[in-house]
Amino acid sequence: MERIERHASHGGFQEVWQHTSSTLGSGMHFGIYLPAAALAGRRCPVLYWLSGLTCTEQNFITKAGAQRYAAEHGLIVVAPDTSPRGENVADDPAYDLGQGAGFYVNAAQQPWARHYRMYDYVVDELPALVETEFPASAARAISGHSMGGHGALTIALRNPGRYRSVSAFSPIAAPSRVPWGEKAFGAYLGADREAWKQHDTVELLRGATERLPLLVEQGGDDEFLESQLKPELLQAACEAAGHPLQLNIRPGYDHSYYFIASFIGEHIAHHAAALR
Amino acid sequence: MERIERHASHGGFQEVWQHTSSTLGSGMHFGIYLPAAALAGRRCPVLYWLSGLTCTEQNFITKAGAQRYAAEHGLIVVAPDTSPRGENVADDPAYDLGQGAGFYVNAAQQPWARHYRMYDYVVDELPALVETEFPASAARAISGHSMGGHGALTIALRNPGRYRSVSAFSPIAAPSRVPWGEKAFGAYLGADREAWKQHDTVELLRGATERLPLLVEQGGDDEFLESQLKPELLQAACEAAGHPLQLNIRPGYDHSYYFIASFIGEHIAHHAAALR
Repeated sequence: MERIERHASHGGFQEVWQHTSSTLGSGMHFGIYLPAAALAGRRCPVLYWLSGLTCTEQNFITKAGAQRYAAEHGLIVVAPDTSPRGENVADDPAYDLGQGAGFYVNAAQQPWARHYRMYDYVVDELPALVETEFPASAARAISGHSMGGHGALTIALRNPGRYRSVSAFSPIAAPSRVPWGEKAFGAYLGADREAWKQHDTVELLRGATERLPLLVEQGGDDEFLESQLKPELLQAACEAAGHPLQLNIRPGYDHSYYFIASFIGEHIAHHAAALR
Repeated sequence: MERIERHASHGGFQEVWQHTSSTLGSGMHFGIYLPAAALAGRRCPVLYWLSGLTCTEQNFITKAGAQRYAAEHGLIVVAPDTSPRGENVADDPAYDLGQGAGFYVNAAQQPWARHYRMYDYVVDELPALVETEFPASAARAISGHSMGGHGALTIALRNPGRYRSVSAFSPIAAPSRVPWGEKAFGAYLGADREAWKQHDTVELLRGATERLPLLVEQGGDDEFLESQLKPELLQAACEAAGHPLQLNIRPGYDHSYYFIASFIGEHIAHHAAALR
């Protein structure tokens, strides 16, 4: 494991590390923000942030402005890349499949099955690494944007007790029923839609055993609102299951990092309260 | 003039506009943050932000996290590009000359003299445009980073009464005496170093008639500190001239936007107090 970037930021350090992931069979980068408390050797709780389509570990750490709030609350924030990477890793020319579009699943189909195991990477390998190599406690929270919002919600729902809190910005809440999800799940998981249910928030809510409240932020002018995101399906599924949901529709806001930056402070405060 | 981007951000809008600059003879982009008060039709004071080498209007608006503080204080923030642009505009393969490296001067030498007039663009054309086309008052402040910190300081010193406040991050304070400045001034202004003095903060301080305090932020681990920035020359010049300077050396911080984002809130508060 090697540190490839280190920048002082709000009294702590924003770092980028590269390591070889045994889960993915690929070199991977991740961003990690270490607040002053962590630098002083105290074990700090960790917020995992999962990014959206086309993103690397850079988008969130350069654009979201999360460091200020992480510093304030003494949180470590870990932001992995969105897929395995490299010349030997299968890819597709489209932006919504292959590298940059791992969808936080374990692929079962060729040519994806060998490397595309972002679910296991995020759930197991990355936290184990973070909790061994950094002053991180085992108190975890998870959030993300768009494809990463889908990742955060599905991973939290499938792993009761593993996260103290979960939130999402503009999540792909019902991937089985929208073009981005249908394309990716068809390629990675195959034609049998039964297998898709394990990676679909709306489907997982039916069988959820832990009532971890979902905090979801959604821009009212998001260009993908009706075609890909469908927060009304999430709302209906939470109502049907009796699952606690705080869905904030923000009029005028779009799908960009300007939206995330506007509300990341509130989400980090939410996670910090649960992690305390 | 045409709006090419518009994103809701912290209760206001971050926009990007393109227009044809008569000063530069070039199409230009600039970012403008309009806080809620401006959207409600109130004339708001304006902070001009000048970016550094290689930047466009995008770097500051996506990475500095200034919108939160501009919203809080009701400031408009205008971030122009760093040079004229386009296929018909002279350029150089190096990152520190030509497009992306206008240095906020009016070039006198060929092939630069036709388009490279960023001094006049920032001092005259851009504020006239902003104050005509947007709900902007004539209360102005100016700041910037590196090459843009040099721009902010020199422009404020040369135009008494035009800005209520000035600040800079990691400014090239003595361009006549460092490689970046010597190269750019030699190309744009010519071999006669007398002409350079009008664009050198340390030189301008000798004859400054207005004692506008300088707020300067400098990372202690900035990779360009000793070779290009030389804050000790700025400090000595201010002492010799009796010019008020608050120079904050921040241990551990580098030259990046992580540094800017860490302290932009304090600078915006400083400008807001002067603009009130």
